[in-house]
Amino acid sequence: MLSLPTIPPLDYSAQAAARARQDSLTKPPGSLGRLEELSIQLAAITGQARPSVTRKAVIVMAGDHGVAREGVSAYPAEVTPQMVLNFLRGGAAINVLARQAGARVVVVDVGVALDIDAPADAPFYARKIAYGTQNMAHGPAMTRAQAEAAIAEGLDILNAEVANRLDLVATGDMGIGNTTASAAMVAALTGQPVARVTGRGTGIDDAGLARKIAVIERALLVNQPDPHDALDVLAKVGGLEIGGLVGVILGAASRRVPVVLDGFISGAAALVAARLAPDVKPYLIAAHQSVEIGHRVILEDLGLRPLLDLDLRLGEGTGAALAFHLIEAAARLLNEMATFAEAGVSDKG
Amino acid sequence: MLSLPTIPPLDYSAQAAARARQDSLTKPPGSLGRLEELSIQLAAITGQARPSVTRKAVIVMAGDHGVAREGVSAYPAEVTPQMVLNFLRGGAAINVLARQAGARVVVVDVGVALDIDAPADAPFYARKIAYGTQNMAHGPAMTRAQAEAAIAEGLDILNAEVANRLDLVATGDMGIGNTTASAAMVAALTGQPVARVTGRGTGIDDAGLARKIAVIERALLVNQPDPHDALDVLAKVGGLEIGGLVGVILGAASRRVPVVLDGFISGAAALVAARLAPDVKPYLIAAHQSVEIGHRVILEDLGLRPLLDLDLRLGEGTGAALAFHLIEAAARLLNEMATFAEAGVSDKG
Repeated sequence: MLSLPTIPPLDYSAQAAARARQDSLTKPPGSLGRLEELSIQLAAITGQARPSVTRKAVIVMAGDHGVAREGVSAYPAEVTPQMVLNFLRGGAAINVLARQAGARVVVVDVGVALDIDAPADAPFYARKIAYGTQNMAHGPAMTRAQAEAAIAEGLDILNAEVANRLDLVATGDMGIGNTTASAAMVAALTGQPVARVTGRGTGIDDAGLARKIAVIERALLVNQPDPHDALDVLAKVGGLEIGGLVGVILGAASRRVPVVLDGFISGAAALVAARLAPDVKPYLIAAHQSVEIGHRVILEDLGLRPLLDLDLRLGEGTGAALAFHLIEAAARLLNEMATFAEAGVSDKG
Repeated sequence: MLSLPTIPPLDYSAQAAARARQDSLTKPPGSLGRLEELSIQLAAITGQARPSVTRKAVIVMAGDHGVAREGVSAYPAEVTPQMVLNFLRGGAAINVLARQAGARVVVVDVGVALDIDAPADAPFYARKIAYGTQNMAHGPAMTRAQAEAAIAEGLDILNAEVANRLDLVATGDMGIGNTTASAAMVAALTGQPVARVTGRGTGIDDAGLARKIAVIERALLVNQPDPHDALDVLAKVGGLEIGGLVGVILGAASRRVPVVLDGFISGAAALVAARLAPDVKPYLIAAHQSVEIGHRVILEDLGLRPLLDLDLRLGEGTGAALAFHLIEAAARLLNEMATFAEAGVSDKG
């Protein structure tokens, strides 16, 4: 039986102090727009009136999907372990963006279909729960116990990273077939029609999209996930890496670490996290608006407005790693700008 | 008589090489969205198939506006020189964001109403053409010769900075009253009604906005700027710092340096630059969508889509400095990601 961590309330005193400081800085009040809001959110989450976001990590959860056998992706399933090795060697997009942001990339095998031969010194957690999920078109992707185990791994890894100090965490994913699982989860949890939440993933054509929608509709019919039981939805039509991200999100909120959500897969995980623990919501920052059409439904459901809109649809945590810069900018502006009094600048007449 | 620099054609060979490389990198083609487009634009501008954007500067042009006497701003005109000193001491928002981006802040007095006592080692150009413009509500803000001189200063400073190496330049501004001048310019150049292009600037109330619109309408009536003569518009209802930015923009394009436009004031300058030399357009990158309503009209006119939309309305180059990160990310992804062949990842089936 999964034990969920307690999520603390926001720190309203730090929040008020950050807001007051924003209004004393040498700029028209409100003129830094969403960066001002972000800085105030960081203060409320962390309890620091002058929050710092120095230690940053992207936790990339990887897992395979039985449903990939239905031909729902433009790429073969073997790409999942190949890309995990690419992450560990530093050649993937997330590595480049994390290097630029000064963030670590932490890779977790929570359900890849092959064993990963990771270099000894790589930031890698081998936490395989299964060699991929079962094919949800024919039955449940996971048992409830497997879904709970995936969440528990995410919680554990988050806590291990916090012990090593962590100011800001981003969620990332790798798993051929995982936009199919995520779309099924979003349809089940929000009641939206499958066609409204299903996109082209890595780039399938019109026929592929029609097949993907049909596969998801079949999976929902076969499994009948209970929309009021997010764990049931995660187990029956979700994925191991998505469960791992649910754990990362809940764990981060419980430790007062702001969570930067990447795109569609991370969003599906956040939806489950928010169903299990609604208090997680103010700890979330939506990095970007993905091209995947179902992502909009997730953000509306969670009441989140994305920071970036760059037509991204890669996953891995790439959008979140890009947003680190804006979040760090928000904190730096709050911390480093001169006040009207310090700079000898005349305030509003 | 102003002599405009020649703007070279884009390098289509470097552009094609960058596009081909994007399609070989370990990600679904197109999945990095606007970052892929940006990297290809950088290659076309710079002529480098693997462009680097290491040396970055924000050129902040400062000038005062006679029209400030009409009560069109929430702040007194003395704030212009006070903020210039804040820039030179490193306490303003643009300093914080440029530090984060690893960019220099270059401050130019092209028309501040007070003499600036700059520290000897500050990155400061004293190029004052006048102690502020005249009040355009009663007559032309500048003579045509002054407008040309402002552009010439911008060109000269850009060339001096390029001599010192410059991979990427952003435009910034400081000048109490300059959203009033910019709105007048945009109305004159695009034919849009004044009310459609006039916003609240630093934060005036409803009565202030009505007064600002009336002042701009009067200035256009009194001066009758010729919409087909961008220099006439700049001189009669523009500003010295806006003229300086026109020079920076034209100079950068002539030297194959990508230009990152900040918000409304920079946009008004870009509109003039594009009227004087339409070939400048592919060299422009719109950093963000400003809160100022007239900014949208400018971006549509120039055919530019902004990278960020963060409800900013500060100026100084702040939005542009934030966008540096995305532009650098685009270049780094192109340069540093592994190809499918290098990483041993299976390509699309």
